[in-house]
This record gives sequence, C-alpha cells and structure tokens, in this order.
Amino acid sequence: MTYQELPRSEAVLEFEKVKKEYEQLCEKGLSLDLSRGKPGKEQLDMVSPILRALEDTDEFISEVGLDVRNYGGLDGIPEMKRIFADLFGLPEKNIIIGGNSSLNLMYDTITRAMMFGVPGSVRPWRKQEKIKFLAPSPGYDRHFIVCETLGVELIPVNMTPTGPDMDQVEALVSVDESIKGIWCIPKYSNPDGYTYSDETVDRLANMHTAAPDFRIFWDNAYGVHDFDQNDHDELKDIFSACKEAGNENRILYFASTSKMTFPGAGVAMMAMWDDNLKQAKKLLGAQTIGFDKVNQLRHVRFFKNAANVHQLMEKHAQILRPRFELVMKKLAEGLGGTGCADWTKPKGGYFVSLYTMDGCAENVYQLCKTAGVKLTEAGGAFPYGHNPRDNHLRLAPTYPSLSDLSDALDCLVLCVKYACLNKILNG
Amino acid sequence: MTYQELPRSEAVLEFEKVKKEYEQLCEKGLSLDLSRGKPGKEQLDMVSPILRALEDTDEFISEVGLDVRNYGGLDGIPEMKRIFADLFGLPEKNIIIGGNSSLNLMYDTITRAMMFGVPGSVRPWRKQEKIKFLAPSPGYDRHFIVCETLGVELIPVNMTPTGPDMDQVEALVSVDESIKGIWCIPKYSNPDGYTYSDETVDRLANMHTAAPDFRIFWDNAYGVHDFDQNDHDELKDIFSACKEAGNENRILYFASTSKMTFPGAGVAMMAMWDDNLKQAKKLLGAQTIGFDKVNQLRHVRFFKNAANVHQLMEKHAQILRPRFELVMKKLAEGLGGTGCADWTKPKGGYFVSLYTMDGCAENVYQLCKTAGVKLTEAGGAFPYGHNPRDNHLRLAPTYPSLSDLSDALDCLVLCVKYACLNKILNG
Repeated sequence: MTYQELPRSEAVLEFEKVKKEYEQLCEKGLSLDLSRGKPGKEQLDMVSPILRALEDTDEFISEVGLDVRNYGGLDGIPEMKRIFADLFGLPEKNIIIGGNSSLNLMYDTITRAMMFGVPGSVRPWRKQEKIKFLAPSPGYDRHFIVCETLGVELIPVNMTPTGPDMDQVEALVSVDESIKGIWCIPKYSNPDGYTYSDETVDRLANMHTAAPDFRIFWDNAYGVHDFDQNDHDELKDIFSACKEAGNENRILYFASTSKMTFPGAGVAMMAMWDDNLKQAKKLLGAQTIGFDKVNQLRHVRFFKNAANVHQLMEKHAQILRPRFELVMKKLAEGLGGTGCADWTKPKGGYFVSLYTMDGCAENVYQLCKTAGVKLTEAGGAFPYGHNPRDNHLRLAPTYPSLSDLSDALDCLVLCVKYACLNKILNG
Repeated sequence: MTYQELPRSEAVLEFEKVKKEYEQLCEKGLSLDLSRGKPGKEQLDMVSPILRALEDTDEFISEVGLDVRNYGGLDGIPEMKRIFADLFGLPEKNIIIGGNSSLNLMYDTITRAMMFGVPGSVRPWRKQEKIKFLAPSPGYDRHFIVCETLGVELIPVNMTPTGPDMDQVEALVSVDESIKGIWCIPKYSNPDGYTYSDETVDRLANMHTAAPDFRIFWDNAYGVHDFDQNDHDELKDIFSACKEAGNENRILYFASTSKMTFPGAGVAMMAMWDDNLKQAKKLLGAQTIGFDKVNQLRHVRFFKNAANVHQLMEKHAQILRPRFELVMKKLAEGLGGTGCADWTKPKGGYFVSLYTMDGCAENVYQLCKTAGVKLTEAGGAFPYGHNPRDNHLRLAPTYPSLSDLSDALDCLVLCVKYACLNKILNG
C-alpha cells in the first residue's frame, strides 16, 4: 500500500515515526555531500600515473614534426585527434582539440555565433532580436547558465527515456526562426542517465528547422562511461546522420577526457563538418596561438589508443558500479512501494534522477540540508533554476566513499518519506 | 661616407658588387628562419625537468585544500598566484590564473567587454557605434589581429624609446569617447625591445580619457626577461600608479610563463582591481569550471618561488645573450656607417627592430625570401599589416642555432644593402 493509499490515521502514525527518526538523525550532525558530479579520490589516484607518461627524457615531437612544448598546432596534434576519432566514430580531420574544458569550447562557440553568426546565418546572432535554445529538462545546469549569461532564452522541453520529447522539439523548431540550438547530453544524460534512441537521433538530424542556422550542441560527456561493457546503452552516430540528412552544418560535437583522466586537467575536443570547422579555426586563430599540446601528448602516451581507453573506463566502472548499485538498493529498500518517489536506473554516467511526488523536492532538499546532507538544489537541473513541478532531485553518488554514500542515502530516503507524508497530510 | 653620400658612380660599383654577392648567395639554397619569436630547443630542454616536478607519488592538495586534479578553483591556486604576485609586484588577491595562453585571456576580455561592457560602461561595447583601440606601432601583430577580428578599429600611434608617443595618446583619448583601449608591451616591447619610462607609465595612469570605460591592456610578456640581471631596464609599477591616480579600473595586467617554461604549455595570468575582478570572475564562471590546476601546481613545484624564477631567467639569458650579441655585431659590422639602416639595442625580450631607409623594408623581405631566409613580413608589426613608411623589419633571433643565425644575418645585411642601393639608384 502506498502512502497515498494509507488511511489517514496510519499515515499520521507513519509520519510521527519518520519525524522521530529524522530528529534523531539530525542530532548525529552529518556532513555529507551528494551534490558533486565528480570522480572520487580512488579514481584520480588510479589515473595519476599519467603524470609520468611524459618526462623530460621523452621525445616531444608530434608525428607532424611539431615540438609540443613550443608554439604552434592551433587545432591539436593528430595523435590526440585520432584517439577521440576512434572513441566516438568521428572523422579525425573534423576534430579540433581544445584546452581542459569542453564547457569552455561550448561557451566560446556560442559567443562566436553571437559575435559573427555561423555558416548559414543571415546575420550575427547578437544582431537578431531574440535568440532561443531548447533545453531538454531536467538537464545540465552549466549548459543553461551559458545561455542565461549570454542572453539566450531557454525554452524547456520534456526529457524522456528516449531523449527530448521530439514532438515538442519538432513543433517548436519548425515554426520559430529565433530558436537556434538545442542542448543534448545524448548518452547517460545529466541528470537522468537516459540515452537517446536511434529514432531520436534520426529525428534530430532530419527535422525541419525554421532557422537556417540551427545547431545541435551534442555534449557526449559520458560517451564511453558505461558501468558494464557487456550491458550498456548504444548511441547512434549523429555526426554521419546529419551529413546523410543533408544537414551537416547542424551538428556540433563535444567531448573530453575530464572523466577519463582528470576533471581539472584533461583534454577537450569539438568536431564539426567542414563549413563550421573552417570558421571555427579562423576565429580560434585570433583567440590563441594554440592549446596545451604537452598535455595532449601526455594523454596520447598514457592512452596509446582507443582500446586502452575502454580498458581504463572499465577500471573506472569497477569503482563506480558499487556506488550506483548501492543507490539502487537503498532507494528500492527505502522507497519501493511507498509511492513517494521513482528514480532512473542508468547503465552509465555520473547521475541518478530521483522524482518525488510533485511539490516535495524543495522540501527534501531543505530537510537533507538541515540533517547535514548536501544535495544539488531542487530545480537546479531546470532552466533558470526553476522546476514548475518541484519533483526532481539530482543524485551524484561518485564522489563520496561507499560508507558516506550509504549514510547519505539513508538520510535521503528518510527525508523523502518525511516530505511526502507531510505533503499528503498537510498539503 | 654613407651610401646616400656616395658619388653615383661609386654607388653603381657598390651595387654591382652587392648584387653579385647576392646572386652567389642565392645559389647556396639557404633555408633559414628569423621570423619566429619563440624559444629554441636548448631553452626548452633546459626547462623540461618541470615534467617531473609533479608525479603520481606527489601530494595533489593545494594549500586551500583543493585536489588540483579535480574540478573547482575557478581563479587558480593561491600558490601560483603568489609567484606571479612576487614577480610583478601585484596583489595576490587581484590575480586570476588562466590556461596556457595570455593572448586567450586578452581576447576573452575584449569579447566580454563587447558582450557585456566593463565596469564604467554605459552599455556593452557592441552596442556602441564604433569601438577603437590605440595601437602603438610597430607592435605585436597578434594584439592587432584580436581587434581586427572583433571589429575594433585600430588607431596607430608612434612608438618611441620611452613608450608610445604620449602627446599623441593623450590628444586622442581625451577627445574621442569611442577609444576604449590601448595595447602595451611595456618592457622590452615587441618588436622594438623598448621599455616604457616612468613618465610614460605615470601619464598613462593619470591621463584624462573621454571614455569612462577606457582600459590599458598591459601585456607584460617580457617582464623578467632580462639578458643581464645586472644591467637591465626597470619598469614602473602601473598597477599601483593607476590606483593612486584614482583610475584603478583602467588597468588590465597580463603575463604568462610562456617564455619561462613552455610556450605551448605554460600558465597565463591576468590581474585587475576589484570591480573588474568581480565582473571577470562572474563571467568566467559561466565559461569554464576552471583552468588546468595540475599544470599550475606543476609550475609551483618547479619554481618554488619568485627568486628561483629569476635564476631560471638568468639561465635563459645565457642562451639568448650570444644570439642578440651576434645580431648587434653583424648589423654593426655590415651596416654601420652605410646609412642603410638603424636598429634597436634591447637589454631583454625576444626581438630587435631593424629600421631601413623608407620604402626598402618590403624589398628586403622579398630579397631574403628569395635567398632562403624567412623574415616576419614587412608591415607585419603594424595595424592591418601596413607600414606607411615601409621601413621596418622585426628580427627574431631566439629560435635558430647560432650558426644558422649567423648565416641568416649575413644574408639580411646583404639584402639591406641591395635594397638600399637599389632605392638610391633607381628610386
């Protein structure tokens, strides 16, 4: 029997019990954090031998004859491009290697579009009355903040287990010329852990857009971040799909090694077909002489090839799997059958979405905070930080130790029950 | 007797002699390069032990408790700030550490001003009819290209041995509200190797500007790059001078370790007073989660402190000094007293300016190119690549070996004589 189905007297008793447990928990003075989507120390230590992958006795000449320590090589060394090309099935020549941050590449790409437009633009985006992006929601707050900062209006569309609600997307982009882009984390999405279906990929690649300069920001942040290499999601190749659909300028593809090596010192990349590439390289050439090629070569020496990257990701998975299994176990044991909440069951990535009864998420966030467990803010995964249904929390189980994670989840479960019963009883 | 003073018959004889020598030189099939302002292999090898300064057995926690391998630390680790602060006499708290490229920080700073304005702006620069920057000329081509790319008009002002012609600068900025900035390489300027006098620094800090949001882009690229630590130029502290003058928002200070460690993988910084700092940090926070802190800590471990940086720069100087001495010797022996050219005699930095008779520089460039010696394009150091007097060539003697440099200079001397005599005889 779910909480909603309980007779009121039983619900009151249950609420009293939960409340008492919560009060006892608060006295423990926990200090735990489920908010941060970043690798834990064990993962970082595991990849730290990369720091010995390039030493002063090494050879510093890239296969194109460039000394990586010196100036030059605007778009990166081919060895590094090749590894990304092999990992994501992209043409090597269409890749630009950046610095340590793919978010920075995305921000700069939109800034360039604002200043100069993109191939197909009638004028620079900043000279148009309004620029809008579709924001599949819940989504990645930093994507949304880029738009909010640069004055791009966000239009929420619903996220589903197969990707953004494509009926909504197509209806919007087909009539509104001011919609210039859509944010996508296509595999193990942040925060749901959903992977776009083949149909979604095809519809994105083929849909009619009123804007002649519409762009898909394809942030494949978790493209090789499976928990189990024998049981993982498959993502259709949108880069080819766009070309085949005759919409090759539409796709801007981003990725990085942030969660393969170091979040703070990885290597980012973007890929795009020729027209976009030509413009990006020209403008990048005014912005910098080149990104850090020493770190690129360090990654190449460490990875050697894409097959080794997959092996490395399996080692990451061995560290991450028990954490996500614990989340599934605790949520099922604690909330299964209560009707308080549902949650996603991703096969990779860094997050789990917890969907509470409508109108409860903010309260859960506050209850956890009071008890000493920090969550990502309720609404944080929605444009402008606002979720009209107030029913979503993003769980990030990768950073804490298993024991801390266990305590944090116990607290979370209790707070969800608390908020849910409170809502049922007191509205 | 200078070439200009020679009787025509003697000039003709001399020209025949030079021409013959040049033709013989061309047959040698040289392939040399004086165009690249970058360190040579010997310098890069000397600093390559930095690659062992941070290994996987090391401690990765910055003094603020941050694991440098992970996310966080938008404005850099304090240890790295402190070294820059000590090197340049800047307040540590006003420094932001960037990625590997100070040019990138400058480009992004102007882009932010275009998009959002700066403290003091009435509106974003892009919403003003015209934005102009003063370009002390000759100057650094990449500075100029940033402006040309972003649609900022460049107004040339004359460079003098004490810095930009301040009478010109003051006259321009005091009346034209659309002039929003000036490019400065204040110590061992690119390409002249001049250092701004105290008076120039004071006038820049104190001058009245019609624009309420005028900015000095102070690119102190060669601030510690003396050839001789006992005989070097001194640069007055403009950061304090601006504050004392009540113009603290005016100064944007840039530097990097590009020519201390690796041009391709150094650490860049910018410093600004509080209003600018607050805005920059806020907008940077949308652009990236943070720059490469592993490379910052690697530099901290390698440098340890500012005193060690000065010792390292003395080692660089030992490699560079003979090259610049050779330039001085070859130019004096080859061109002294001919009236063909004059040149600067810097005490540090990476460049020498060669000033030919008016109308000869382009011809020298072409003659050298034909003979197999690549120079920076004549006009390259001027806005829009155009020097109305056609009298300037930038010499970059740091990259070639001493023996290659010697051959290249012999060729250059001959080509200067050739072009000069040709001009005298044939106009």
